[in-house]
Amino acid sequence: MSLKQFMPSIEWLGKYGKREVKGDLSAGLTVGVMLIPQGMAYAMIAGLPPIYGLYASTVPLIIYALLGTSRQLAVGPVAMVSLLTAAGIGSMAEGGSETYIQLAILLALFVGLIQFALGVFRLGFLVNFLSHPVISGFTSAASLIIGLSQLKHLLGVDLDRSHHIHEILIQAFNNIGQTNLATLGIGLAGIILIISAKKINRSIPGPLLAVLFGVLAVWGLDLASSGVKIVGSVPKGLPSFTLPSIQLDTLQALLPVALAISLVSFMESIAVAKAIQAKHKDYKVVPNQELLALGLANVGGALFQSYPVTGGFSRTAVNDQAGAKTGMASIISALLIVLTLLFLTPLFYFLPNAILASVIMVAVFGLIDYKEAIHLWKANRGDFWMLVVTFIATLGLGIEQGIAIGVVLSLAMIIYRTTKPHIAELGRVPHTDLYRNVDRFQEVIDREDLLIIRFDAQLYFANVNYFKENIEERMTNKGDKLKTIIIASESINNLDSSAVHALEDIVQNIHDQGRQVYFSSVKGPVRDAMKKGHLFEKIGEKNFFMSIQDAVNYFDNKEEEGNDKVEYVMQTNK
Amino acid sequence: MSLKQFMPSIEWLGKYGKREVKGDLSAGLTVGVMLIPQGMAYAMIAGLPPIYGLYASTVPLIIYALLGTSRQLAVGPVAMVSLLTAAGIGSMAEGGSETYIQLAILLALFVGLIQFALGVFRLGFLVNFLSHPVISGFTSAASLIIGLSQLKHLLGVDLDRSHHIHEILIQAFNNIGQTNLATLGIGLAGIILIISAKKINRSIPGPLLAVLFGVLAVWGLDLASSGVKIVGSVPKGLPSFTLPSIQLDTLQALLPVALAISLVSFMESIAVAKAIQAKHKDYKVVPNQELLALGLANVGGALFQSYPVTGGFSRTAVNDQAGAKTGMASIISALLIVLTLLFLTPLFYFLPNAILASVIMVAVFGLIDYKEAIHLWKANRGDFWMLVVTFIATLGLGIEQGIAIGVVLSLAMIIYRTTKPHIAELGRVPHTDLYRNVDRFQEVIDREDLLIIRFDAQLYFANVNYFKENIEERMTNKGDKLKTIIIASESINNLDSSAVHALEDIVQNIHDQGRQVYFSSVKGPVRDAMKKGHLFEKIGEKNFFMSIQDAVNYFDNKEEEGNDKVEYVMQTNK
Repeated sequence: MSLKQFMPSIEWLGKYGKREVKGDLSAGLTVGVMLIPQGMAYAMIAGLPPIYGLYASTVPLIIYALLGTSRQLAVGPVAMVSLLTAAGIGSMAEGGSETYIQLAILLALFVGLIQFALGVFRLGFLVNFLSHPVISGFTSAASLIIGLSQLKHLLGVDLDRSHHIHEILIQAFNNIGQTNLATLGIGLAGIILIISAKKINRSIPGPLLAVLFGVLAVWGLDLASSGVKIVGSVPKGLPSFTLPSIQLDTLQALLPVALAISLVSFMESIAVAKAIQAKHKDYKVVPNQELLALGLANVGGALFQSYPVTGGFSRTAVNDQAGAKTGMASIISALLIVLTLLFLTPLFYFLPNAILASVIMVAVFGLIDYKEAIHLWKANRGDFWMLVVTFIATLGLGIEQGIAIGVVLSLAMIIYRTTKPHIAELGRVPHTDLYRNVDRFQEVIDREDLLIIRFDAQLYFANVNYFKENIEERMTNKGDKLKTIIIASESINNLDSSAVHALEDIVQNIHDQGRQVYFSSVKGPVRDAMKKGHLFEKIGEKNFFMSIQDAVNYFDNKEEEGNDKVEYVMQTNK
Repeated sequence: MSLKQFMPSIEWLGKYGKREVKGDLSAGLTVGVMLIPQGMAYAMIAGLPPIYGLYASTVPLIIYALLGTSRQLAVGPVAMVSLLTAAGIGSMAEGGSETYIQLAILLALFVGLIQFALGVFRLGFLVNFLSHPVISGFTSAASLIIGLSQLKHLLGVDLDRSHHIHEILIQAFNNIGQTNLATLGIGLAGIILIISAKKINRSIPGPLLAVLFGVLAVWGLDLASSGVKIVGSVPKGLPSFTLPSIQLDTLQALLPVALAISLVSFMESIAVAKAIQAKHKDYKVVPNQELLALGLANVGGALFQSYPVTGGFSRTAVNDQAGAKTGMASIISALLIVLTLLFLTPLFYFLPNAILASVIMVAVFGLIDYKEAIHLWKANRGDFWMLVVTFIATLGLGIEQGIAIGVVLSLAMIIYRTTKPHIAELGRVPHTDLYRNVDRFQEVIDREDLLIIRFDAQLYFANVNYFKENIEERMTNKGDKLKTIIIASESINNLDSSAVHALEDIVQNIHDQGRQVYFSSVKGPVRDAMKKGHLFEKIGEKNFFMSIQDAVNYFDNKEEEGNDKVEYVMQTNK
């Protein structure tokens, strides 16, 4: 492994210039400004004192920026992992207590080590199991949840925290009378400002302008006294270097939640990273390197009082939208948090929450991908339903459940599809040696004495019965004139031991009926499996042919001569 | 659904004759005699009074015999389901109490309804996911456990009940000194008698002879007084018709265990039924009908004080070995239990347990399938390990865990195999229009200006990245002279929406390099997916060909003429 692979930042650091600095600065500051209230809010979800959300927004960001392959991914505290943290250690210590804090930090160390190990053992391929419809459905649902969770800040009303969309909407509807109009006004102005800035010129840092506008409006018009909620004062001081105390039985108790967070946070992170990368052609997201980078970000963070972090959804979207070009944006965000912790708290004192809500809402609602759903409805109905199920499961059951259901269902569908694969009966295309599906091509010649079957899947335990029954049915349908069955094997990509047993039975059945069976275009790996399973001997090597036409010619010659003298043996057989 | 499909017994009842009656009588009586002590023992495993094991050996057997598709399957109490019953309701009431008994009967009703529903919705196909190696490994391990669990009866020593083979062996070794020689002698005599009878003539009812021998030996030599354990007296009276009392919250509490028993017992039953059916050509096992039959057997049983039953392992083996030809054997077993409950208890009073142990041991050790393991070691290494893992997991972790691990692993292997499928680079076989793998056939012609790739799997989300990277690598290897890529698509059996997106990218990349891409032999379902995904328009319909040779000819003509005038459009396209 080269240094450049382990530290992808070397590439962009080498040619860092003016073009990058503008976007990175705007994005880094915007995300940094978002991180202050978000970090504090998410820490509270995790049951930790707010300051720990800011600690988690320093060291991990810098480590990821240097080691990660995504250039827009905004690492730090996220809602989902915060929730998982609270659920995992909530029963082990009282929320906010010193023990609880130590457990949260130990958890970050543990998660980091697990992710690092997954990366070292190159298990990043697991992420290939996230199909396009699942990512799309999950992304849309998570965007909706995150966006609507900001409704309370936009309206300036108190709503209970919830991740269920109907609860959020019912609460908002019941409390609509208490809307603080000044808050709503600032929020809507923020949304309009950000959208307009984007429409006029994508390089204008809309979110930053909205932040400035919000601070000035609240300060100038003294809106805080009319009930507009502001960020207020932030505690001071940097996180200190501390080695987490490790006890074996504590680790054992943390193992389940650490595993869950490791996988779920990697999935969220890589899904976001891949979605954003699709818009950028200048780099590639490498899953195993992502695991190493996220792992070390968590380990490094844990040494500086951080709880588990990952690549976040909304901030990554904002980061990209605000023009982030490289990981420098994240370093700038981290430095802004450092400065904030040290000196700058007063500057954000008057920042209204409604402005931050507007930044998040514009960012995430843009990720709701209804066009893909419409496209899939027309292009692939099965994948459309996969998207819808993932979307509904994520909304109704929760973020990690939604993605888990999506992955399991899409794999189940792949498996299910191979249990009843496409089987074609072939006929000769006139004046050629080509054979095509008799149901799709009307002009092909379908002979009564020949049954040519093409099975379009690997033949294995879950579909051998289907294959067996299908062949028997077709033989019955062909009637008494049928003399020979040709199994066109060009699409059989594999053969397991159950399939070898089943083929033995099938060949035996055909022979018992006084009919012959030929195999054409059997491909390498299948030929190997047949040879090892002693199927070659049972079928007879002379019954294998290079092409369907060869098999048909052999059959015709045999019929003409009425004997076995003519033998076209398969020429090559390596 | 015809009556004959719903009641497969009509077929054999219609032509029932002498040939059947001999085997059925011997088998029915042998299994019936086994059922008395087994039923009582298994009821005790389930935490129920022994008499309930006999109740479960009456009504369900008759219902299954009439509705089931297997003619040898011996339904009734089995060890595994008894264990699951105890585990499921053990925490809800005290073992043996009236509430506990009611819960066990309610559980049978619930299991029956679930299985019936699975059958109605035709979910019996789930059983296709039991691969040959998994069934083989599971069967061998379960046989070993069941066989060795009889060791205590054979030796006449007291051992704790255990399903872990090392515990059984250690206990037996530690207690070997307490072996009752008379018991061991009778047991070994039974084993020799059964094996000899089978060797001389398969139609001799060895187990029945062994039973007779055992009863006479114990009675005549008064062996009971020298410590030979005998069945002893059995409580009297038939089960009575009772409607189980149903409460919604009880059902809710029972749901998990009811689901587990429904699936696990169906899997055990169908695996046994299929294994035995393979030896008989006169009928077929139909999974959905099996679910209906087992479901109604449990429902009917529950109305007559029965706890959950299924097709058992050892008794089915004995039933088959003793010559059962039809379900009449089970009806005879049930009638024997009925008679036993009413009158015949004294006849079995002197039956030694060691004889029953010998019957079970001979039956199940014959099912240990080491030959398949040896065969797979040579024929298919992956499937060999699947067998071994299932075998070890069943021995080490338990029967249901073993089969679950086997199924999940074999599906995971199928999925994993499709993530990195076989990809072949093709060249022309001299003097033919055939194209074959350049790595397997040395004489094929590999051109520098053409890259012909065949991808041997359905193209879907979990392998599109692999395909993408593989094509790029091969293009780089081919070097600068490469002009055109032909994707030979005869083995691509399906295309999901992720694959459509990926193909768009691949085609775009190839075009960006100033190269052309052709598709040959794209099959029906894939052509449909391409059309719906608007991929046809993006690739250009003229770039699709019926065969590789057509594509190569088109390329050669274009090269010669140096322009685009010659166009071989794909002729048929329905």
